[in-house]
Amino acid sequence: MYPSALEKLIEYFRSLPSVGRKTAERYAMAVLEMSSDEVLGFADQLVDAVKKIKHCHICGCLTENDICDYCKDENRDRSTICVVQQPKDLMAIEKLGQYHGLYHVLHGAISTTKGVLPEDINIDSLFKRLDENVREVIIATNSTLEGDTTALYLTKRLRDYPHLTVTRLASGLPMGGNLDYADDLTLLRALQGRTRQ
Amino acid sequence: MYPSALEKLIEYFRSLPSVGRKTAERYAMAVLEMSSDEVLGFADQLVDAVKKIKHCHICGCLTENDICDYCKDENRDRSTICVVQQPKDLMAIEKLGQYHGLYHVLHGAISTTKGVLPEDINIDSLFKRLDENVREVIIATNSTLEGDTTALYLTKRLRDYPHLTVTRLASGLPMGGNLDYADDLTLLRALQGRTRQ
Repeated sequence: MYPSALEKLIEYFRSLPSVGRKTAERYAMAVLEMSSDEVLGFADQLVDAVKKIKHCHICGCLTENDICDYCKDENRDRSTICVVQQPKDLMAIEKLGQYHGLYHVLHGAISTTKGVLPEDINIDSLFKRLDENVREVIIATNSTLEGDTTALYLTKRLRDYPHLTVTRLASGLPMGGNLDYADDLTLLRALQGRTRQ
Repeated sequence: MYPSALEKLIEYFRSLPSVGRKTAERYAMAVLEMSSDEVLGFADQLVDAVKKIKHCHICGCLTENDICDYCKDENRDRSTICVVQQPKDLMAIEKLGQYHGLYHVLHGAISTTKGVLPEDINIDSLFKRLDENVREVIIATNSTLEGDTTALYLTKRLRDYPHLTVTRLASGLPMGGNLDYADDLTLLRALQGRTRQ
């Protein structure tokens, strides 16, 4: 056992996702090597981030204000809302630089195994946003069981809005992917979603 | 880009060893999910660990006191000192439960490529400990170029203490290791260090 102050720090690092004992030890050792200014900065930033970061009242994405920069931005296309599971999914789409509409972050997905119900995630606020300006909802949930369940649920409920076009990200072979390495489900999806050339 | 308070936290996580952008983002997101008590505890522990953890005045291992528990413990065999590179190496040996002597932590290894000289690591204090009570020094540096260089340096200097037995951890095939998978150097060491059956 390391001295208790260090053991406690190791335990905190272990609470981060996919961090085991060895990795947590390495992180704690690295912290001991940092200058005290750096460690103070790190500690302050932990508290500061949690204090400052909120969910946007409209779309649920991470922001330091009540309304996020995407929702505020008058130049964005207000006729399209892209629904994602997590803030990092929003970042991935934003990084493409090709999508200029609005977002909606669910902060999770419906899961029967984990007991996550539609009311447990940020779904209801999506329907409050669907005024006559919105023409398309792009469902960009993950291509997993939970993502599919959520997409199905959303699609069903969105049928009540006949003026809306509801789309979902295409499933299929990833770029550079070999057909014979693709799993059955991916290949099936690619076949079902084949496009006319 | 995430909000700046979050970006700054991500940067701090990136300063940990082997943490890239994606991993740092995951950690920062996990922090946002923690209760504020937990985050405050984490932040406090960072500062606390760095403030409290010192190097033992005698052996250099990590401790909250001036002298560590190993050096203080009257039940440990004071005739043997095991020299390791890092505190985690000490932990690995201690976990075996088979070694009951003292330790000496170098906090590094001599490296010509990185420009680490003998005076840059905790070597001099080792020689101050070599009174007539000490009968054996076990060199337990890593089986790497730097570990070997350090072992060589120590062995040479320890020749000035004729009452001492100087040993080094055995090199050879790891348990469960296949001979044909072993690299040449490991196999050569195993051959050179062969033991009579």
